[in-house]
Amino acid sequence: VEDVMFVRQPDEVEFAKVDMDGAEKVWISVLLGEDQEVPNFLMRRFRIEPGGHTPYHAHGWEHEIFCVAGRGEVRQDGNAWLLTPGASALVPPDEDHNFVNTGSEPFEFLCLIPKSV
Amino acid sequence: VEDVMFVRQPDEVEFAKVDMDGAEKVWISVLLGEDQEVPNFLMRRFRIEPGGHTPYHAHGWEHEIFCVAGRGEVRQDGNAWLLTPGASALVPPDEDHNFVNTGSEPFEFLCLIPKSV
Repeated sequence: VEDVMFVRQPDEVEFAKVDMDGAEKVWISVLLGEDQEVPNFLMRRFRIEPGGHTPYHAHGWEHEIFCVAGRGEVRQDGNAWLLTPGASALVPPDEDHNFVNTGSEPFEFLCLIPKSV
Repeated sequence: VEDVMFVRQPDEVEFAKVDMDGAEKVWISVLLGEDQEVPNFLMRRFRIEPGGHTPYHAHGWEHEIFCVAGRGEVRQDGNAWLLTPGASALVPPDEDHNFVNTGSEPFEFLCLIPKSV
């Protein structure tokens, strides 16, 4: 039955280190992407280790965020918005932003983006 | 700073009962939708109480699923795929499906869909 619905169980999630400039202690797992032939948008799971952060940057597409574990912030200039498990967030297109682990455990969140970026 | 990033904290999530034919004990919260002016896709959080299920149906758009709490299944014909917290799933367009709570606690999951449906 695996050919109809694609399901990835929690113990099947594998992370890869993010090597992008400005990324510190960041890992990514593409949960739903090109391999699953998603029609419109990709679901990625990020893990930021304590002390880590994503690059501070902007781009022309949005992020839809859902915090899964740990404690962190999305930041812009001097502003910060708290993210704890169960919090959701929209980072609109073209807004400077980064994600920072402000806790002592891995900070994990879903980050969905349009397929055509 | 609320006008740049939209963040909904976990204690700000409000559910509404789903009155659709075939829905039993199903609640929905639109985490990111028209009110947040999402560009491309909507993030909804569903809660199905024990004994409940969504309508068995098909439609021309996909579901991207991430299980947040409880235990349930996505089903098609006689087949069932387990969903527990941390599992992700793709329900492709035009596939019959429903979601069923098979546990004793609320079964909760994110279900993202394209904006233009």
